[in-house]
Amino acid sequence: MSVMTEPQTGAGKPPAARKLVEPTYEGDFVLDEPLLLESGRALAGATLHYAVYGRLNAARDNAVLVCHALTGSALVGSWWPEIFGPGAVLSLENDFVICINILGSCYGSTGPGSVDPETGRVFGPDFPLVSVRDNVRAQAQLLDSLGVRCLRLVLGGSLGGMQALEWAILFPQRVQRALVIAVTPVSAMGLALNHLQRQAILHDPDWLGGHYLPQRPPRRGLALARQIGMLSYKSAGLFDERFARHPNRNGEDPWSLDHQGGGLIGGRFDIAGYLDYQGERFIDRFDANSYLAILRTMDTWDPSHGHASSAEVFGGIRAQLTFVGISTDWLFPPQDVRRFAAEIRAAGVQAGYREMISSHGHDAFLAEQAELVRLLQ
Amino acid sequence: MSVMTEPQTGAGKPPAARKLVEPTYEGDFVLDEPLLLESGRALAGATLHYAVYGRLNAARDNAVLVCHALTGSALVGSWWPEIFGPGAVLSLENDFVICINILGSCYGSTGPGSVDPETGRVFGPDFPLVSVRDNVRAQAQLLDSLGVRCLRLVLGGSLGGMQALEWAILFPQRVQRALVIAVTPVSAMGLALNHLQRQAILHDPDWLGGHYLPQRPPRRGLALARQIGMLSYKSAGLFDERFARHPNRNGEDPWSLDHQGGGLIGGRFDIAGYLDYQGERFIDRFDANSYLAILRTMDTWDPSHGHASSAEVFGGIRAQLTFVGISTDWLFPPQDVRRFAAEIRAAGVQAGYREMISSHGHDAFLAEQAELVRLLQ
Repeated sequence: MSVMTEPQTGAGKPPAARKLVEPTYEGDFVLDEPLLLESGRALAGATLHYAVYGRLNAARDNAVLVCHALTGSALVGSWWPEIFGPGAVLSLENDFVICINILGSCYGSTGPGSVDPETGRVFGPDFPLVSVRDNVRAQAQLLDSLGVRCLRLVLGGSLGGMQALEWAILFPQRVQRALVIAVTPVSAMGLALNHLQRQAILHDPDWLGGHYLPQRPPRRGLALARQIGMLSYKSAGLFDERFARHPNRNGEDPWSLDHQGGGLIGGRFDIAGYLDYQGERFIDRFDANSYLAILRTMDTWDPSHGHASSAEVFGGIRAQLTFVGISTDWLFPPQDVRRFAAEIRAAGVQAGYREMISSHGHDAFLAEQAELVRLLQ
Repeated sequence: MSVMTEPQTGAGKPPAARKLVEPTYEGDFVLDEPLLLESGRALAGATLHYAVYGRLNAARDNAVLVCHALTGSALVGSWWPEIFGPGAVLSLENDFVICINILGSCYGSTGPGSVDPETGRVFGPDFPLVSVRDNVRAQAQLLDSLGVRCLRLVLGGSLGGMQALEWAILFPQRVQRALVIAVTPVSAMGLALNHLQRQAILHDPDWLGGHYLPQRPPRRGLALARQIGMLSYKSAGLFDERFARHPNRNGEDPWSLDHQGGGLIGGRFDIAGYLDYQGERFIDRFDANSYLAILRTMDTWDPSHGHASSAEVFGGIRAQLTFVGISTDWLFPPQDVRRFAAEIRAAGVQAGYREMISSHGHDAFLAEQAELVRLLQ
């Protein structure tokens, strides 16, 4: 039905689907102590689900951390396989690659669908705000447990890039290089898009204030949220090229006399059929409360928040940073990424900028992996 | 609450609000015969609500037709007052200005909330698709009744521009000049945005398949639809400039420990408060089924649809056309408007192109009227 078969943003497919590069190990790490959150709350019994690829060498200097985007999973080999290609960014022979599912997700780490050990009930809407920084602190404990002190590289796109940069800020001694792709603190337009996605879920009567039953989740609201997100992951040019003003390929006619829903609705255009398909696919693989939790994690990330100067925030970074902007990305426009890199450079940090030329939009770092690999070589 | 107090897209305020330029007459015109629609159906007893400004001169050569956008009204003096300024585009002394509410609307012309004379019941979701061309044919009958054969100018932005161009195509003998602002046939991204707005309304349980009660309309769905639309009427730069990443000005805190809806939701950013306010304002002035009807009118407009060549469609135009693109418009990007003008010029038509430099986005033709007037002088 869709001509776009590549993974979508954050498109960790659901764990187990399309394992193109198999992990060496996949498992859970449970934090010893309650995780103290920036918000002041604590998350007890926090579990991080993670996957590793390759092996840590004797010198323990070959570790790489990959951080995933909004709806991704720990299985980086499944959603970013070409990064592992011969001569690409990562090597299964030489690197020890770790990828950790973000807190709040529904792919193994503690999230709104988990049981709160303090109450014995599912967190649901009471799941706390877990910031990007909170995640990075928890991830550091997991890396400690694996014997990884130093990362030769930490990388990610979108929310993954937020984590990568936060690693460089928070643990300057532990990060040699960070690759920050298609991200800045979320702009006003990004906050707007996330707000409307949130509203779409909250408006669904099945959401029930976040207390929905697993067998009756807010499917329509989550689908609409995903569809709003999809607009921002793609570019207008890509949509014109692939869908133009064609009627839906299933034969519906936008000019038809009367269609489902009477004269007010009409048959769908092809782009509408595509979006509906994307919404349907998504609700089978993701949880609405997890989506809300991670949107908030993204929205609230702003390393400069509460600081007087950029130098104060970024000045301590020792890693060599590379920022990547995507030419047609309108969620995190390349000029914003370039400006962000320049701001950090002005704080005395090594921070390069490269631009990926792609018609694809924000999603290009997932949809055009070969291009990304070429850019980074 | 909002720093944006200018009228929004299609922002005919509800009739009676902010009458900055008073009409000479405001009234209804009822078509004699059923209006035969492009879809094959007929609309019986169709009524056009309209307003006129100034007086038709003896030579009957001073008539101007203004066509409104998606949610506008016949009261062009209220939503486009600066067009009437001294030395501006229109003159109350010299012009006879007509503005006609589009069919499907809830501002006086026949729409889904009207009674179908054939059934005696409200149309509701059975309101037929009324195309831009259908509207123009009906408008021509109204102009006939006013004794207006020839228009010295027909103009409009967005959906209004669609009507202006359609006038030049359909009645080449009657139009001397047409001014087509910020519009082309809706692109794939535009169709996508309209589809999601439609879904937002359809998902609202109060929509009831279009058979909602007047006292219980699908308010949340319509508000969300409007909010999605708002994103496309404004620019990312404008949002950054006006809202940035500021917390909502009412004092909510996005980083707060717990806010309405628990840890998953949090306090709003300023842009979210603005969008919510826009949604709230809109549901007090517009009808959900009308919104659906007019979205479909927009979506289906494509003069080339079903024709083999541009020359066949546009070659008969005799009017002098001027297209205006807006530099930051991402709903109808200026390069698309420029290309559209060039396509029509290639058919042997006088079709100029001008670009309005504005940070505002699509809405600039309403929000920055003085700029538009300057460009057109």
